[in-house]
Amino acid sequence: MNETVDILKNHRSIRKFKDERLDGETVRELVEAAQSASTSSYVQAYTIMGVTDSAKKKALSEISTQSYVENNGHLFVFLADYHRHYELSKDKGTPIAYDKTEQLIVGTVDAALAAQNLAVAAESMGLGMCYIGSLRNDMAKVIEILELPKGVIPLFGMVVGKPDHAGSRKERLPFDVIYHENEYKPVEDVKGSIDAYDKEISEYYKERSDGRRDDAWSDQVIGMLSKKQRLDVDAVIKGQGFLGQ
Amino acid sequence: MNETVDILKNHRSIRKFKDERLDGETVRELVEAAQSASTSSYVQAYTIMGVTDSAKKKALSEISTQSYVENNGHLFVFLADYHRHYELSKDKGTPIAYDKTEQLIVGTVDAALAAQNLAVAAESMGLGMCYIGSLRNDMAKVIEILELPKGVIPLFGMVVGKPDHAGSRKERLPFDVIYHENEYKPVEDVKGSIDAYDKEISEYYKERSDGRRDDAWSDQVIGMLSKKQRLDVDAVIKGQGFLGQ
Repeated sequence: MNETVDILKNHRSIRKFKDERLDGETVRELVEAAQSASTSSYVQAYTIMGVTDSAKKKALSEISTQSYVENNGHLFVFLADYHRHYELSKDKGTPIAYDKTEQLIVGTVDAALAAQNLAVAAESMGLGMCYIGSLRNDMAKVIEILELPKGVIPLFGMVVGKPDHAGSRKERLPFDVIYHENEYKPVEDVKGSIDAYDKEISEYYKERSDGRRDDAWSDQVIGMLSKKQRLDVDAVIKGQGFLGQ
Repeated sequence: MNETVDILKNHRSIRKFKDERLDGETVRELVEAAQSASTSSYVQAYTIMGVTDSAKKKALSEISTQSYVENNGHLFVFLADYHRHYELSKDKGTPIAYDKTEQLIVGTVDAALAAQNLAVAAESMGLGMCYIGSLRNDMAKVIEILELPKGVIPLFGMVVGKPDHAGSRKERLPFDVIYHENEYKPVEDVKGSIDAYDKEISEYYKERSDGRRDDAWSDQVIGMLSKKQRLDVDAVIKGQGFLGQ
């Protein structure tokens, strides 16, 4: 198609990096690409936190239980952020509220659009990256480590750096499962596609693990969703002033 | 830098399109680029709905109050979606729950990462695009029009097509306001940057509107945030089975 679409379609998560820090110019280039993403009604309700302090990186890697949160070229944490707007509105005498579900969605979408631009920019430069959703294993602790004020929530991290392994592209659900037109397709209409996909993913794992693992996609994600994880996220977010109280 | 970073940094929203529909191959290419984005724990908790039916497009444009929701090359609606996982888990006898804040964040982030890949792919092909957050003006009505089952919420739309105007790049907040390192910068530390930015944005509007408009960024977004809009989003999302009840 074209070079950019090729980059998008060749994405793979990288979890092992060469021991080289990104320089300031590269970080700036990545953040500026992130900032260029669309933002809801121009609100720019996010902040990107770079973490280079080794004690903080270590503490965050303990929350995520992933060593690559400590060992990478650069660690970013993406924050939904209304603190700035709130402080500015106080100065103007009309404090705004951000405690409705609408603002949580806006801040989360704004941060995610910026993050994905950063991911694409990094991969276009030959860097590797991986999202770190596991910072939500203990969101309260992340807030403490990064000393985040009210109005700010740490949504996820991203590690970026020079890849030290090739990574492998993980096949996505078939097009007809994800893309619907004009009306929502009942699951039974795409069950055949999901079953075929399950077989394919099971083969992929079998091959990569010398037969030690062969879980299908649906078993894997249903197993994950059936664990009642991160039940504290709601209370922590509310503690930061979101979702009413 | 490189072609992809140039595309990212040159983003501008397009709100007027030539009267040409995207062909099926282009739609597929865009959706496959979207699907290649990262997804939390492989869960793929989203669906992309294309809307080509003219009555449905008209109805959605009335919700958003934007004519370009009706007149474009293609209209996409991005859905956070656990319906598929729920149905599959029922078949396996262990129904999953998606009613915690964690799952709302995962579905919203998954959909937004996919959407941003789609946006970048479209721009790389010379197409224009604009996000349609205003579908949340009446989320219940969007659910009705698209007949979305429980477990599915329409987060935002995106129009794509051949641009019929140049658009203009809107300057973002200065780098030092958005990017923090190791600790969160208090607003007073970046107030000078925000003030300079406000002046710049005010000039931008003055120039584009022949002096009829000169609102600074902070006035504009604080004005917007002070309106208590979309208060129904919370109840609608809960009605779809999210955020507990």
